[in-house]
Amino acid sequence: MNKNQHNTRIQKAVQCLASLQEDGKLSHCTCDGEPNPSRDELKEIIELCRSVLFPGFFGDNAAINPATLPYHLGVNMERLFSKLSSQLYAGMCFGDDNRQMSERKALAKDMASEFIEKLPEIKEILTTDVEAIFNGDPAAKNFGEIILSYPGIRAIVNYRIAHCLLQIGANILIPRIITEMAHSETGIDIHPGATIGKYFAIDHGTGIVIGETCIIGNNVKLYQGVTLGAKSFPTDADNNPIKGIPRHPILEDNVVVYAGATILGRITIGKNSVIGGNTWVTTDVAAGSVITI
Amino acid sequence: MNKNQHNTRIQKAVQCLASLQEDGKLSHCTCDGEPNPSRDELKEIIELCRSVLFPGFFGDNAAINPATLPYHLGVNMERLFSKLSSQLYAGMCFGDDNRQMSERKALAKDMASEFIEKLPEIKEILTTDVEAIFNGDPAAKNFGEIILSYPGIRAIVNYRIAHCLLQIGANILIPRIITEMAHSETGIDIHPGATIGKYFAIDHGTGIVIGETCIIGNNVKLYQGVTLGAKSFPTDADNNPIKGIPRHPILEDNVVVYAGATILGRITIGKNSVIGGNTWVTTDVAAGSVITI
Amino acid sequence: MNKNQHNTRIQKAVQCLASLQEDGKLSHCTCDGEPNPSRDELKEIIELCRSVLFPGFFGDNAAINPATLPYHLGVNMERLFSKLSSQLYAGMCFGDDNRQMSERKALAKDMASEFIEKLPEIKEILTTDVEAIFNGDPAAKNFGEIILSYPGIRAIVNYRIAHCLLQIGANILIPRIITEMAHSETGIDIHPGATIGKYFAIDHGTGIVIGETCIIGNNVKLYQGVTLGAKSFPTDADNNPIKGIPRHPILEDNVVVYAGATILGRITIGKNSVIGGNTWVTTDVAAGSVITI
Amino acid sequence: MNKNQHNTRIQKAVQCLASLQEDGKLSHCTCDGEPNPSRDELKEIIELCRSVLFPGFFGDNAAINPATLPYHLGVNMERLFSKLSSQLYAGMCFGDDNRQMSERKALAKDMASEFIEKLPEIKEILTTDVEAIFNGDPAAKNFGEIILSYPGIRAIVNYRIAHCLLQIGANILIPRIITEMAHSETGIDIHPGATIGKYFAIDHGTGIVIGETCIIGNNVKLYQGVTLGAKSFPTDADNNPIKGIPRHPILEDNVVVYAGATILGRITIGKNSVIGGNTWVTTDVAAGSVITI
Amino acid sequence: MNKNQHNTRIQKAVQCLASLQEDGKLSHCTCDGEPNPSRDELKEIIELCRSVLFPGFFGDNAAINPATLPYHLGVNMERLFSKLSSQLYAGMCFGDDNRQMSERKALAKDMASEFIEKLPEIKEILTTDVEAIFNGDPAAKNFGEIILSYPGIRAIVNYRIAHCLLQIGANILIPRIITEMAHSETGIDIHPGATIGKYFAIDHGTGIVIGETCIIGNNVKLYQGVTLGAKSFPTDADNNPIKGIPRHPILEDNVVVYAGATILGRITIGKNSVIGGNTWVTTDVAAGSVITI
Amino acid sequence: MNKNQHNTRIQKAVQCLASLQEDGKLSHCTCDGEPNPSRDELKEIIELCRSVLFPGFFGDNAAINPATLPYHLGVNMERLFSKLSSQLYAGMCFGDDNRQMSERKALAKDMASEFIEKLPEIKEILTTDVEAIFNGDPAAKNFGEIILSYPGIRAIVNYRIAHCLLQIGANILIPRIITEMAHSETGIDIHPGATIGKYFAIDHGTGIVIGETCIIGNNVKLYQGVTLGAKSFPTDADNNPIKGIPRHPILEDNVVVYAGATILGRITIGKNSVIGGNTWVTTDVAAGSVITI
Repeated sequence: MNKNQHNTRIQKAVQCLASLQEDGKLSHCTCDGEPNPSRDELKEIIELCRSVLFPGFFGDNAAINPATLPYHLGVNMERLFSKLSSQLYAGMCFGDDNRQMSERKALAKDMASEFIEKLPEIKEILTTDVEAIFNGDPAAKNFGEIILSYPGIRAIVNYRIAHCLLQIGANILIPRIITEMAHSETGIDIHPGATIGKYFAIDHGTGIVIGETCIIGNNVKLYQGVTLGAKSFPTDADNNPIKGIPRHPILEDNVVVYAGATILGRITIGKNSVIGGNTWVTTDVAAGSVITI
Repeated sequence: MNKNQHNTRIQKAVQCLASLQEDGKLSHCTCDGEPNPSRDELKEIIELCRSVLFPGFFGDNAAINPATLPYHLGVNMERLFSKLSSQLYAGMCFGDDNRQMSERKALAKDMASEFIEKLPEIKEILTTDVEAIFNGDPAAKNFGEIILSYPGIRAIVNYRIAHCLLQIGANILIPRIITEMAHSETGIDIHPGATIGKYFAIDHGTGIVIGETCIIGNNVKLYQGVTLGAKSFPTDADNNPIKGIPRHPILEDNVVVYAGATILGRITIGKNSVIGGNTWVTTDVAAGSVITI
Repeated sequence: MNKNQHNTRIQKAVQCLASLQEDGKLSHCTCDGEPNPSRDELKEIIELCRSVLFPGFFGDNAAINPATLPYHLGVNMERLFSKLSSQLYAGMCFGDDNRQMSERKALAKDMASEFIEKLPEIKEILTTDVEAIFNGDPAAKNFGEIILSYPGIRAIVNYRIAHCLLQIGANILIPRIITEMAHSETGIDIHPGATIGKYFAIDHGTGIVIGETCIIGNNVKLYQGVTLGAKSFPTDADNNPIKGIPRHPILEDNVVVYAGATILGRITIGKNSVIGGNTWVTTDVAAGSVITI
Repeated sequence: MNKNQHNTRIQKAVQCLASLQEDGKLSHCTCDGEPNPSRDELKEIIELCRSVLFPGFFGDNAAINPATLPYHLGVNMERLFSKLSSQLYAGMCFGDDNRQMSERKALAKDMASEFIEKLPEIKEILTTDVEAIFNGDPAAKNFGEIILSYPGIRAIVNYRIAHCLLQIGANILIPRIITEMAHSETGIDIHPGATIGKYFAIDHGTGIVIGETCIIGNNVKLYQGVTLGAKSFPTDADNNPIKGIPRHPILEDNVVVYAGATILGRITIGKNSVIGGNTWVTTDVAAGSVITI
Repeated sequence: MNKNQHNTRIQKAVQCLASLQEDGKLSHCTCDGEPNPSRDELKEIIELCRSVLFPGFFGDNAAINPATLPYHLGVNMERLFSKLSSQLYAGMCFGDDNRQMSERKALAKDMASEFIEKLPEIKEILTTDVEAIFNGDPAAKNFGEIILSYPGIRAIVNYRIAHCLLQIGANILIPRIITEMAHSETGIDIHPGATIGKYFAIDHGTGIVIGETCIIGNNVKLYQGVTLGAKSFPTDADNNPIKGIPRHPILEDNVVVYAGATILGRITIGKNSVIGGNTWVTTDVAAGSVITI
Repeated sequence: MNKNQHNTRIQKAVQCLASLQEDGKLSHCTCDGEPNPSRDELKEIIELCRSVLFPGFFGDNAAINPATLPYHLGVNMERLFSKLSSQLYAGMCFGDDNRQMSERKALAKDMASEFIEKLPEIKEILTTDVEAIFNGDPAAKNFGEIILSYPGIRAIVNYRIAHCLLQIGANILIPRIITEMAHSETGIDIHPGATIGKYFAIDHGTGIVIGETCIIGNNVKLYQGVTLGAKSFPTDADNNPIKGIPRHPILEDNVVVYAGATILGRITIGKNSVIGGNTWVTTDVAAGSVITI
């Protein structure tokens, strides 16, 4: 084939795809230059959060010391405020939001500053998570090692940020992308809608799935390959799944779930229970139980 | 040790490794400046495909609107043509291809434009995949959410691109790198040689393996941790595995496979069957069956 | 809310987080401009190792040929020496190292050049790993395909580098980050402390976990989802796990472990044994055994 | 000095400079996230203009051919529209503009699209400039050489763009930065307010100054070091220079000015005159004159 | 020629240049990993200075407001301290400095923090320079325009920074590179050793040269192409120029020098004098004089 | 105006400019993916030359020492060979070259390796230039200062590279862009065709012009603003300038030309002459003369 024939193929494909767009289902058109939800922007937002939550471990950390820490926190938070406002606004533009553009923008800023207000709380609960891993893993020598190299903590950080954003009222798309970023990096898939207590520890983690309506107490530990999923969900008259019905497990305080266990449905795993590896659990488990294969 | 001693170590290692190369097994030498298969280039090729298949979601999307869409499609496709030609050519240079360099180059361009010609078809089938996920997941609120955040769709996009390239005649190396990129991002490992029908849905997905000779019908859904693998493969007189023999399962239309199920060998899972979680299936399953642990 | 109110929230969060730091557990303060362990730096270190171990496949490879190979090896090794010294030094600064800064710097350089001295050995054993995959997978057409696209080899390369660094005396943090980088990319989690023989092959690999005290012989093959873990570990009087006690399995030569198998505790899997998929093994297995579900 | 003392100096300087800002003369505060005039953005705007005016010479030009040219023009112009709107808006925010923010934004977009409408005109007159250099310089072998390597044409391109923006109503700051960018690159300082006819040629060019109220006819040529400046300007009662009064020379058609000549004041250099090198001219020159030192 | 012949040429040139180095005059060898004076680093240092001196005009300025200004100043100054210390240390390593490495490093840090301490003074005098340009140029509409687009102010900023560093004791190389950077951008060549008073204004500026021992009073204005140079310099017995002897002009307060004037030797131009364009001045000029061609 | 109206303007401008291209004078179309002459590529080529000619001063110089120098030289030269071949080939594609593409490619490689062969010679003559500046400037303390900060040496390096390429047979476009890059950075405009002897020194340099047919002896020094130009050039019957006739001055050994002097036409400035500042010289000057204004 010669160059003209290649060009003809390209031109035909352009015409074909341009006309295919007309349904608009798989294409997205910004109306007035508003930003798009962006993985790159959200990645930077997570980096900014990390640098603020764990100063000296992440970010441009060469020169952090107590005297200059507030400067770094301030600059990073202002940047976080700007970028997060923009992405929250982008998220709103994806939904069926009927508010005016200016109203949406203002709301996005309010949510962003509310999130910043909650960062100290997020830091406090993350401290308990790091401690839980430290106390439970003989290999971990110090907090820094966990913060810098454990995939579990990486997934939990993203989850706690995403969960907070969801509570504040962010369009689900933004928290979803945030937890999916961690899923991609770590193989740990936590839905931002799940509720998870303090001192939460994940070991190895690849293959873990935690569903949207899970409720996890304090001091719970999960190993790799654990699924906390839905068994089935009721459908309406048109055979469409009914949304919002609790359908994932409740794990009470101090539960440990070993590798490969599958726990399905709105069941309760009672306090202090131990769920053995590769088990298949679909009914309530009394407090203090030990379930094995 | 002083600087000279460090230098001596470096120099000795250089000499040693330079002479080790002579077998040529683990080193690669370009003969005449031809390009190498490159993850970075292939990553950009995938990004270009995404921007063309889902305009406004990927790529430099700030300004997409129907009036200017053809410009963006055109520029992206021309770049895609150029980069893909180059990588297909690079793939050929890795094989035992006896053709002249100029012939290989021309062939690579023909394949690249043929691929572009097929992009509308790829888009059509991907539309069914997005719809399948949308219809099957109560959490998904709109197509955009699926396109932007679901790992399953990310893996399927790469698979459909890689499969098309393989059919067009690309050296296996290029499609393999493309599906491995998705494997790395999502934990979903689909061989480009597998055959997969319309309305294919993956949920969560981490740990899924779909082997080279699998045949999957329409409207099939897989959960995380599912293996569609080979049970064993016949060997020749020299005890080497014989290539190309069908050795992976066939899944007929409307099959659902739950998390952790393992299906091995050239068996057939009949229409409308449901394979339960953590099952181990190595024999044919009649249509409409429900298999549980 | 107006701009001032947003600023107030930011300022309050700055103050709160700045004062929270005082415990110093989740923040890291460099005393005198020493470098931090850095994923980006370690990523580049791995890239340099790859370009030196597999010349022409990785790195700026357009122009590699036997005549100029030593130049490329030399430049890459000098850069590797510089970057690795810096990261090894950074690792030391994280520990409880009482040595002087200048002594630590000198030690880091010695370790870096020792590592470079061992690169030819690492290359030799990696050659056996590539061969093992090549011989065991009918789909693999040549070494290049394995080097460029197989996640298993990617994980093994990082493991062998990390293991070597650990043996040389590097602070555990550096090898851990290196194996975690591979874990994130491939879903394969190998602890740098494990001991692994020649001709080691991994297929697919997602979900594999290999614990710290594992000992793996020659010619062993693992499929996806295999766990070589600890069953339990003795605790001291204060209920803290005792460190350093061997607690993971020993796999003798020629063992094959199929997908999803879980092998736990300090048990021995005898030579030439085959462990079937989804099995749960917690006791010794005699040589030549075949274990199935 | 120790680290604390260094920190103290930094903290004192921060306080001092933060309080110094209060006059607001040398600091700039954006009210509501509006963009700032940006050299980097304007540089990219100029690159986009060049790629549109001289396709194949500038920009990502590897693949330009007549069949795909419209795609490239379209994408570049849309990007130009977006970036130029933003910078024109930024320019307005610097002035004493009393309009509403939304009105200013709309106006900036109107100006940007008006500029794009005028690009074909700009291209036409630039064609005459390139021709003039080509015809006047025995060393120039083709148009491409002039477009790619002559500083004179680089300065003229920026001037014609800046002049057009000024006529359209842009705040002077934006055109000024554009001509200063050329000044920095070429040593040729043309005020965007000057009026310059067709077939304008500059040779070498370093040190040329062309003042704000200059009027230059068609087919004029200037050598390096030529000043077309103001001799003096009337001042008002407060001894401040009165703005806007014509104070720079008029050069009629076909004038040539050799290196180092200085022409000052609102004088007229008649048609077809030749002004010799290093001359000092402050009075009218009749048509057809030859002035030498 | 074939590939081998090209390789041979390269290899011979390598050998030849490697052996040529032995004189060490045109090559530079770092002894122990110390940094090199770096244009890129110094460019960033200047950008940091600009962002601190003119906040909101330079740097990442999107979000500057009075409430968050101290954060930005603090972060930028800490980065400036780090980078400047490093470059000052690099400068010392170029000289014949006999001090220990650790002593040099400490000294460099002291100089860097002393420089930061003087930034408010530098800002104050720069304010007078901007005012002088504003008052003297009818075209300038506001301070921002001057700060963002006038080459004169760009050159003066670099000069004042370089002069301050020289006074503090920096090796001449660092200030020289800083003023050469401005020379390259603006065509204005000011030696860092020159002494220049307040309210210093430069118009256009291309071709200005201000020599090392110049002394310039307050409220002086220079136009393009002005040279303040040395006429001749006494030589010693070996015919080498004697260093450090004042050999450049003194310009007293309120002097104006028009375009292209050349003023040579250790002469004094008295207060309130006006030196006309293209003049050649090599003897003292009494206060209040007007010199023309 | 609304979005549609902006789009209409853009679309009309696209159509208009796309059709304007048809003359092909100001657009450039690559026939078959050949490279374009590229400022960015040539900039990198110059950087590679600098790093090879002045090792440790330019390039990635952190680790240069005599033991590893050959590695760095080798890698840089191989890269130089590759990039320069490509640009020389690009230059040929601009001319009226009738050779086959493959022949041109081979020729470009031959020229590139010939250039590399001449690098030691270029280094030798540049050594004399650096010495000349060092000996003539009391301010210069060491060679490093000159190499790193003197614009004169920067311009001479580019000239000597460009001149060598021209002699080897490169299309004039490539050397022209190289000298123009130096012109832009330094204000010194040296035509690559000029012939310049050893020990050539430039001081300050802004505004210097050295014409195509200049011949400059050994040990010549030029100050800023010096023009070595053509007075006039004979035209043919059609009034077009006749190319290639010597029309610029000859400066014999040991000539010094002070700031602002203009020397025009094919005249000879005899040995050991001194041409004073701001002079205008258009006739031969006897050896040993001193010319003043």
